[in-house]
Amino acid sequence: MKPPTPKSYGVPLILLLFSIYSNSGAPYNIPRLTLHGSIPQYLESISPSSSPVSLHDFETYFYEQTLDHFNYGPPSYATFKQKYAINTKYWGGANSSSPIFAHLGAESPLDHDFLRVGFPVDHAPFFNALVVYVEHRYYGESVPFGSMEEALKNETTRGFFNSAQAIADYAEVLLYVKERFSSPNSPVIVFGGSYGGMLAAAAWFRLKYPHIAIGALASSAPVLYFDNITPQDGYYWIVTKDFLATSASCYRTIKDSWDIVDNIASQPGGLSILSQRFKTCSHLNSGVELKNFLVSMYASHAQYNHPPDYPLTVLCEAIDRAGSQTDIIGQIFAGVESAFGKNSSCYDVNYFHRPTETNEGWGWQRCSEMVMPIGRTVEAHMFQPAPFNLTEFTQYCKLVYGVPPRPHWITTYYGGHDIKLTLQKFASNIIFSNGRKDPYSSGGVLEDLSDSLLAISTAHGCHGLDLYPANQSTDPEWLVMQRKMEVRIIEGWIKTYYADLSSIN
Amino acid sequence: MKPPTPKSYGVPLILLLFSIYSNSGAPYNIPRLTLHGSIPQYLESISPSSSPVSLHDFETYFYEQTLDHFNYGPPSYATFKQKYAINTKYWGGANSSSPIFAHLGAESPLDHDFLRVGFPVDHAPFFNALVVYVEHRYYGESVPFGSMEEALKNETTRGFFNSAQAIADYAEVLLYVKERFSSPNSPVIVFGGSYGGMLAAAAWFRLKYPHIAIGALASSAPVLYFDNITPQDGYYWIVTKDFLATSASCYRTIKDSWDIVDNIASQPGGLSILSQRFKTCSHLNSGVELKNFLVSMYASHAQYNHPPDYPLTVLCEAIDRAGSQTDIIGQIFAGVESAFGKNSSCYDVNYFHRPTETNEGWGWQRCSEMVMPIGRTVEAHMFQPAPFNLTEFTQYCKLVYGVPPRPHWITTYYGGHDIKLTLQKFASNIIFSNGRKDPYSSGGVLEDLSDSLLAISTAHGCHGLDLYPANQSTDPEWLVMQRKMEVRIIEGWIKTYYADLSSIN
Repeated sequence: MKPPTPKSYGVPLILLLFSIYSNSGAPYNIPRLTLHGSIPQYLESISPSSSPVSLHDFETYFYEQTLDHFNYGPPSYATFKQKYAINTKYWGGANSSSPIFAHLGAESPLDHDFLRVGFPVDHAPFFNALVVYVEHRYYGESVPFGSMEEALKNETTRGFFNSAQAIADYAEVLLYVKERFSSPNSPVIVFGGSYGGMLAAAAWFRLKYPHIAIGALASSAPVLYFDNITPQDGYYWIVTKDFLATSASCYRTIKDSWDIVDNIASQPGGLSILSQRFKTCSHLNSGVELKNFLVSMYASHAQYNHPPDYPLTVLCEAIDRAGSQTDIIGQIFAGVESAFGKNSSCYDVNYFHRPTETNEGWGWQRCSEMVMPIGRTVEAHMFQPAPFNLTEFTQYCKLVYGVPPRPHWITTYYGGHDIKLTLQKFASNIIFSNGRKDPYSSGGVLEDLSDSLLAISTAHGCHGLDLYPANQSTDPEWLVMQRKMEVRIIEGWIKTYYADLSSIN
Repeated sequence: MKPPTPKSYGVPLILLLFSIYSNSGAPYNIPRLTLHGSIPQYLESISPSSSPVSLHDFETYFYEQTLDHFNYGPPSYATFKQKYAINTKYWGGANSSSPIFAHLGAESPLDHDFLRVGFPVDHAPFFNALVVYVEHRYYGESVPFGSMEEALKNETTRGFFNSAQAIADYAEVLLYVKERFSSPNSPVIVFGGSYGGMLAAAAWFRLKYPHIAIGALASSAPVLYFDNITPQDGYYWIVTKDFLATSASCYRTIKDSWDIVDNIASQPGGLSILSQRFKTCSHLNSGVELKNFLVSMYASHAQYNHPPDYPLTVLCEAIDRAGSQTDIIGQIFAGVESAFGKNSSCYDVNYFHRPTETNEGWGWQRCSEMVMPIGRTVEAHMFQPAPFNLTEFTQYCKLVYGVPPRPHWITTYYGGHDIKLTLQKFASNIIFSNGRKDPYSSGGVLEDLSDSLLAISTAHGCHGLDLYPANQSTDPEWLVMQRKMEVRIIEGWIKTYYADLSSIN
């Protein structure tokens, strides 16, 4: 089935721009790469309480950042304020050459990262590390042109919003921090998850700025999900496998539900029936609207299926449990209730497309350079097929943003094809970590590329899990072990660096 | 002595822009990095006749190039035509996986390179290589906005003219060439001399695009002449040493001449006397004007002191020979005659600043990112001191181009500080070749950084000499050996690559 033409194509561009998610709905239901943002509340249940990450341990600063690093015309001399936060609690002090752990923000405000990214802080005491969190341009408080609305307003203001500019920002900030803390010989290790993992490490920051970061931990970075390196159905194939492994009956119920939804939707009054049965906050415009909502819900449950709650398990339990009392539609609705809370007066089918900062920012990024051709084919057999179609995607992006995407740019600038051949004798000190339950792991580096470009994957991990704050009472043994292994590797990098430093100086 | 304030500061900006070299004259008499451009005719005497490099073996094409790779606003969708030339004479053919030798142009039109860059073509038969020469944006026929005049017209049009954009151009062109020649597995080796050497290889193209080029020969690339990594007087210190080694009396004559010029210039009618004695085409405005001309002449003779003629030797012979017949001024003038030809009716003291494409383009580049702090201190004892002063340089650039230079950007983007520490366990397959007689070798990589980041330097080589077309009848043995060594290393890279390719596939 070809993705339907979005209804919103008739809407004037200026309106479209700020409603891309809510109006465009169906056609490019690509899961966002994010650790936060629009995760259902249900999935927010991880408690960071046992972690030492605390906002109070950070001081927040703003760096006067260059708007355009690669153009020396007038705009390049414009600047904006980029937020970064520093934790000196465990720092070995100026001139100690203690390491600097830098978490490079991704597609969400930095404030979220204090709750969600614990690894650098959790391990700072062991390393006497200075910890720096830097916010990604165009998110949170690091937005040029005064506001996100202004920044995304038109083709000119959006133009500076891309990954090459973002990692150049990080380069400037980190050099500045080293200078400010009088620590020219401190080794910098960068961390990042998901899109941030790509920036932080995997193919990107470490590869492009090896003189600034001596190593990188790139968690759940789908660096190979570009330019058809990874089959388009990798993502939904893993979602399918996750559900099947959790509960065959849950999988079967979901698989059977799509035709039933189509069937009801196609009948007179059918959309009213579906609206009622799913208690939608607004009347459904189409069956596709509902189905897209459900696809996103399943995808996010697979992507964020973390301990101790394992939302995917909980979801499937609800669906399965309801099987004794209701029909398939009722079972699916029981899943929605389980995910979004039983006591809601209604459920918002545009939940995953609501105009959050992350959704709006990432909407632009995926339509410009982050062109991940994620689609659903017969391999993703829990779903109805919805293959990725570059031509339609291009039309869509041109209409919404006025410019076509650059589907080959990421592989041109960062590489990706033949990654082992390319990097096994070039580059070093990158950990590509992945949880195999994470649908995005299908585009991750899952095998070592060399002795120091290491893939660490866990059978049960989900998206970006190793970077979460440690929770001693609930973290499973395999997660504790994974983090220990990562710490051991980073320790090795730092030791080697100190040895090299003293042998050279 | 502080560099004098340029007289031209009173000239309106718009006029200045097109006369930066001819008007600004004195204050920033930084030697250009070029193999060609405004070399005195005398220095052009290398005969490429014995080389197989022939324009006729190349087909010229134009690639529709992205104007701004790093900004997705409207300008980025503008394109310009980028010239490249291909020699298929020795090519192993599509799907043969034969190598591709890519010469990446520097700050001059590509057509010059056919005469001056022979290495890739000379060795193509041995490797069955496809040879590609690509022109640098804003030079030759690869100029956006219709003409060099338009392209350099204002801050907006100049903005796209920088090294990061240029190497992204090369990335696109080379990927396109691989596709066009159906040679996905062909290893690409990049070559470049001087500024082109930096782009091609040394710190830059190979470092930033390891997935596109498996190795690089960076000839005479002063990658360390930024951000005070190299002492500012490195360049003129080598010029001094070159003259001293060639002829102590010549060195002494030049050293003594500056005060004499100052003395005459300061007397009533002194400038007329100097104008007459040096047969200047226009009346001298100052003694500095003459002195800068002479400094540039000496510098270029040191930089391009190539076999078989060794212009520096010839120059010094002329100066020394005249010693028996004339005073010091007469001796210096004998040097000018020797360099520019005895029969000229007059000599143009603005020769080195005349508005050639290279001078105009490089003028912008050095005032934006290519900020090499080259100055003369007491170390450069053949000259009067003229230290580099960043504050004045910044004022000058702001006045001429409307924007301040970015003196730290090159080291931020490409690195340079602690290069061995940074790269010894990162990166591979780069040859940094230098001739120690080349003043720019003071900013070059002169020691191996690792087993595959190799420094090859020759005691007698000058700027970019190894890339010149081979001349079997006149090339000295050490030059022949140097090239053989480079070929051997490149051969090793390619063999390893093929072995890796077959072990992976």
